[in-house]
Parts: sequence; C-alpha cells; structure tokens
Amino acid sequence: MRHFLQELEELQKKLLEMSGLVESSIHESVLALTERRARRVETVWTNEARVNRLEIAIDELATRLLALQQPIAGDLRFITAAIKINTDLERMGDLAVNIAQRALVLIEKPEVNTFADIPKMAALAQEMVRKCLDAFVRRDPDLAREVLLSDDEVDRLRTSVQDEMIEHMQKEPAAVADGVGLILISRHLERIADHATNIAEDTLFLVKGVDVRHRAEVRA
Amino acid sequence: MRHFLQELEELQKKLLEMSGLVESSIHESVLALTERRARRVETVWTNEARVNRLEIAIDELATRLLALQQPIAGDLRFITAAIKINTDLERMGDLAVNIAQRALVLIEKPEVNTFADIPKMAALAQEMVRKCLDAFVRRDPDLAREVLLSDDEVDRLRTSVQDEMIEHMQKEPAAVADGVGLILISRHLERIADHATNIAEDTLFLVKGVDVRHRAEVRA
Repeated sequence: MRHFLQELEELQKKLLEMSGLVESSIHESVLALTERRARRVETVWTNEARVNRLEIAIDELATRLLALQQPIAGDLRFITAAIKINTDLERMGDLAVNIAQRALVLIEKPEVNTFADIPKMAALAQEMVRKCLDAFVRRDPDLAREVLLSDDEVDRLRTSVQDEMIEHMQKEPAAVADGVGLILISRHLERIADHATNIAEDTLFLVKGVDVRHRAEVRA
Repeated sequence: MRHFLQELEELQKKLLEMSGLVESSIHESVLALTERRARRVETVWTNEARVNRLEIAIDELATRLLALQQPIAGDLRFITAAIKINTDLERMGDLAVNIAQRALVLIEKPEVNTFADIPKMAALAQEMVRKCLDAFVRRDPDLAREVLLSDDEVDRLRTSVQDEMIEHMQKEPAAVADGVGLILISRHLERIADHATNIAEDTLFLVKGVDVRHRAEVRA
C-alpha cells in the first residue's frame, strides 16, 4: 500500500472528479431543456456511469484506509466526511439524470416556452457543487458558509418557479402536465442544492469541529 | 469505555429508535392530511427534534468507536454502514416534516377531497422504514430484498397519484395549487422510500459483501 498521505490525496482527487461530473450533468441537462437539444443529455448518461463507478471506488478506498491505517483524529474525521460526501455526490448525479429524463419529455412539446427561474437555479446549484467541494479540499470554512447562504437563495427561486407555474397552469389547463414537469425539475435542483449544503455542513464540522446541523443560529 | 460489543449494541439501538420516530412521523403527517387534524402534526415536530439529537449522538458514537477501537472487517463495515444509515434516517425525518407542513396548508381547504393513492404510499413507505432497519440489525438479506421490491411499487403509486392529479387539475383550474401540493407530498413519500432502499442496499453489502448499487440485475 502506498503512503497514507498519497491515499488521502487520491480520495480527495476522486471526490473532486465526481463533483466535476455532477456539475457537468446539471449544466447539460438544463441546457438540453432550455435549448431544446436532446443530444446534450448524452453527456449526462456517460457522466452517470462514471459517477456510479467512482462512488464504489471511493467507498472501497475509504474503508481500506480505515481498516489498514487505523487513522486517528483529523484523518479519521476526514475519511468519515468523505464517506458521507460520496453518498451526497452520487445522489446529486441521480437528480441530474432525473432532470435530463424530464427535459427529454418537455422539449418534445412546442408549447413549453417559459422556464421561469430554472436556468438561474441551475447556475446557482452548479456553483454550490463546485464551492462545497473546494471548501472541503481546502478546509475553507468561509467558502462552506457561502454555500449555506446560497441555499436560501435556491429555496427562494424554487418558490418563485412554483408560483409562476401554478399561475400559468390556472390560466391554461392544457399546460398543466408540462407545468408539473417544470416544477419537478425545480425540485430536483433544490435537492441538489440541499446535498451541497450537507457537504458544506460536513466541511464546517471537519474544519471547526462545530456541528452546525440543526442549529441555524450558529451558521452565520 | 464500555465493552466494544455493548457499544455496537448501543449504536444499533439508537438507529432503531430513530427509525421508530421516522415511522411515527410519516404516519402522523399523512393522517393529519387525510383526517384533517392539525393536532396530529405536533408529534412530527417533537419527533424531529429527537431525530436531530439522535443523528448527532450516533455520529459521535460511531466516530468514537472507529477512533478508539480501531475495528476491523465486519465491525468496520457495520460502523461505516451505521454512519450512512444515520444520514438516511435524518433525511427521512426532514421529509416527514415537509409532508406535515404541506398537510397543514391543504387541510385548510375544504375543496381538497381526494388523496388518490397517498395513504397507500404512506403505509408502504412506513413498512419499508421498519423492514430496512430490521434487515440491518438482524443481518437479514431476504428482508432487505423485500424493501427493494417495495420501492418499485412505491414508484408505480407515485406515477398514479401524479396522473390522477394532473387529470383533476386540467378539469378544475381552481384545484391547481392543491393538486401540486398533493403531488409534492407523493414525491416526499417516494424519497422516503428511496432512502429506505439505500439502507437495504447498505445492508445487503454488509451481509453479502456484494455491492448491489447500480446493478439492478443482481438485486433479484
């Protein structure tokens, strides 16, 4: 087995690779929708297969490090955080697949011509994915806190998408099914942002040793 | 520190306690909706506070066991599985809170009088929560597989709720906002079932050493 520090680097590198794939999948799935280009989702399927392989590889590497190196203190916290972050990233990849699948249905309908704040939500979610992983690998609490703040903005945008779609559907009964589809895409983006928030919370715990989960008042 | 086996028992007991609270929250939040009884959600808030405290306690216990006992092989896999299951259970608790919040809005509207297959979905989701934790503590792969099968049924019910609601909203534009609310509740239940599925997959990995994630063909 290689040197422990090298293995930790490897773990970190794999998590960054995974987050890059997730970012790309969010980007491509939402552009497939707004640009009506079905070809764009092909990247999402390829990314998904790679994300799934990485999830298993990261779990194996983390478990091996726990078993063979018997790490303590900071290294132990880092590896248990990596195990959780791995799960969050894999679910984010699944959510991007859900967006892509729904986009494929919606782009077949010429009457779908408003996406409300969905592109804005997607851009913000992507940024959160990048920032939470950067915060984790750099052990940067300020960057992690930025992610927590962005999550509030994502929630606001999700409510705005939902309100706009409900109004639209009330006026146009024919638009109901597509409106529901767009609301569900906004929900998938919101969940991606929630997973990024989990990662930011895990990072704050790793760096500061302070558990910010369920304690809104200490987040600021 | 007490004997290692006692600590493992304690970890298991806390996870079972958490799953019991989650089951109760699903039950109460959906009954609050279908019986139009706002008082029922009070249990959900109380459970949520306990679930959040348990999540932190379980993480601390698991990390302590990894640090002080340096467990190997089966025990190590058990503890890393417990860390993941803890996260899943906490998110399920959050989802039950989301259901309760939405139920409170919907029960104020006398015109909401159909819940489609939501009660059936809730009963199935609750059963999955109980079964996946039982499978984990008993190391029972057959029970874990039952959970994977139930997940397909939950997905079918979710589609049926959604189709029924869309049809309803198309006929009744005034029902759009409430229809969206019920669709979102069915989505929350579906996500709870997804988390139970994750736990069942982790259990199969723990018991059989076979990673069934992303390999539908070996699940049967």
